[in-house]
Amino acid sequence: MSDAAMKQCIDTCQECHRTCLEHFTNVCLEKGGEHVEKEHVKLMLDCIQICATCADFMIRGSDLHNFVCRACSEVCQRCADSCEKVGMSDCAAQCRKCAESCGAMAA
Amino acid sequence: MSDAAMKQCIDTCQECHRTCLEHFTNVCLEKGGEHVEKEHVKLMLDCIQICATCADFMIRGSDLHNFVCRACSEVCQRCADSCEKVGMSDCAAQCRKCAESCGAMAA
Amino acid sequence: MSDAAMKQCIDTCQECHRTCLEHFTNVCLEKGGEHVEKEHVKLMLDCIQICATCADFMIRGSDLHNFVCRACSEVCQRCADSCEKVGMSDCAAQCRKCAESCGAMAA
Amino acid sequence: MSDAAMKQCIDTCQECHRTCLEHFTNVCLEKGGEHVEKEHVKLMLDCIQICATCADFMIRGSDLHNFVCRACSEVCQRCADSCEKVGMSDCAAQCRKCAESCGAMAA
Repeated sequence: MSDAAMKQCIDTCQECHRTCLEHFTNVCLEKGGEHVEKEHVKLMLDCIQICATCADFMIRGSDLHNFVCRACSEVCQRCADSCEKVGMSDCAAQCRKCAESCGAMAA
Repeated sequence: MSDAAMKQCIDTCQECHRTCLEHFTNVCLEKGGEHVEKEHVKLMLDCIQICATCADFMIRGSDLHNFVCRACSEVCQRCADSCEKVGMSDCAAQCRKCAESCGAMAA
Repeated sequence: MSDAAMKQCIDTCQECHRTCLEHFTNVCLEKGGEHVEKEHVKLMLDCIQICATCADFMIRGSDLHNFVCRACSEVCQRCADSCEKVGMSDCAAQCRKCAESCGAMAA
Repeated sequence: MSDAAMKQCIDTCQECHRTCLEHFTNVCLEKGGEHVEKEHVKLMLDCIQICATCADFMIRGSDLHNFVCRACSEVCQRCADSCEKVGMSDCAAQCRKCAESCGAMAA
């Protein structure tokens, strides 16, 4: 992977972390109902945490970032599906973008 | 504080987190010597961690963000001084900017 | 502070982090209602995050741990009150214990 | 996996996080030399961070913990090797224990 591709992936992970944490607070906790259903909330928290960890591994230039990118890609994909289902399409789009970017870094 | 001021402070904390982690890896661990002296490294790690935590408190719109901003401001100030001493002036500038921004949010 | 007191405070922060995260998942997200009310959830997440950060500052022997212990003490106190109100008395007790321990370390 | 096995793995990850952060501060930063060599320090920081993230995924009962456990197992294995090489045998033993435990959870 080029340095530019990794820099782009770091940006994407940081944006996904922030977007998910903002949406969790301002959408999920405001709307309630299916937005605070257990599996959706767990996926949001999983996504928020693994995106931050994944970004740090890449910022640090870790030789093992691919393993964390693999995990991050899977989590973001599942979180995107869950966001889609409850109508959080902006958040879903960010998660899907991050899933793709991390998937490419993990390959 | 206005929403714009808080958004700016979140950006600054996230930039400071990333700048410090990049400099720690690419400058401190490359140059060695005083750059890996115990007190300097501890301050760098303190700064990297509290900036991420502080950003998250503000993204979450926590009512208690001021206490974390207070801690973040102190840590960034001390980290700036330590960066200055070892000649990492870019990193010092980012830390000082974050110290000021968080100090204002904590007031 | 003695090393033994700090070691005890690290243990308490780590236990509080884990207790709050377990209760958030297994009680709040199971029961719903007031357990997923915005202010309560934000306090739970604040508490989960600052306890982990505070433990790390002390494990690292940071000279600036007192600032983070001060923030942690405030957050744990407020989280304890919120847990009490929704009937999570075990979690409230752990938060109160952590608030006291961190308060002593910050003094 | 049984609940008891997962609880044991959470304990192991939290102990590995703490052991590595303590050794990084009290051994690596005290001794210097090969102990602060870039690749070793990066592995220590990778291990400290992924162990905390992995523990949280399991505490939260995440359906996706296996992906993070896989990453954690790989990082801990490599960190163990690096600790062994610089004579940090206690830390290496803890990392190896965590690599095995997370490897079993990921299977």
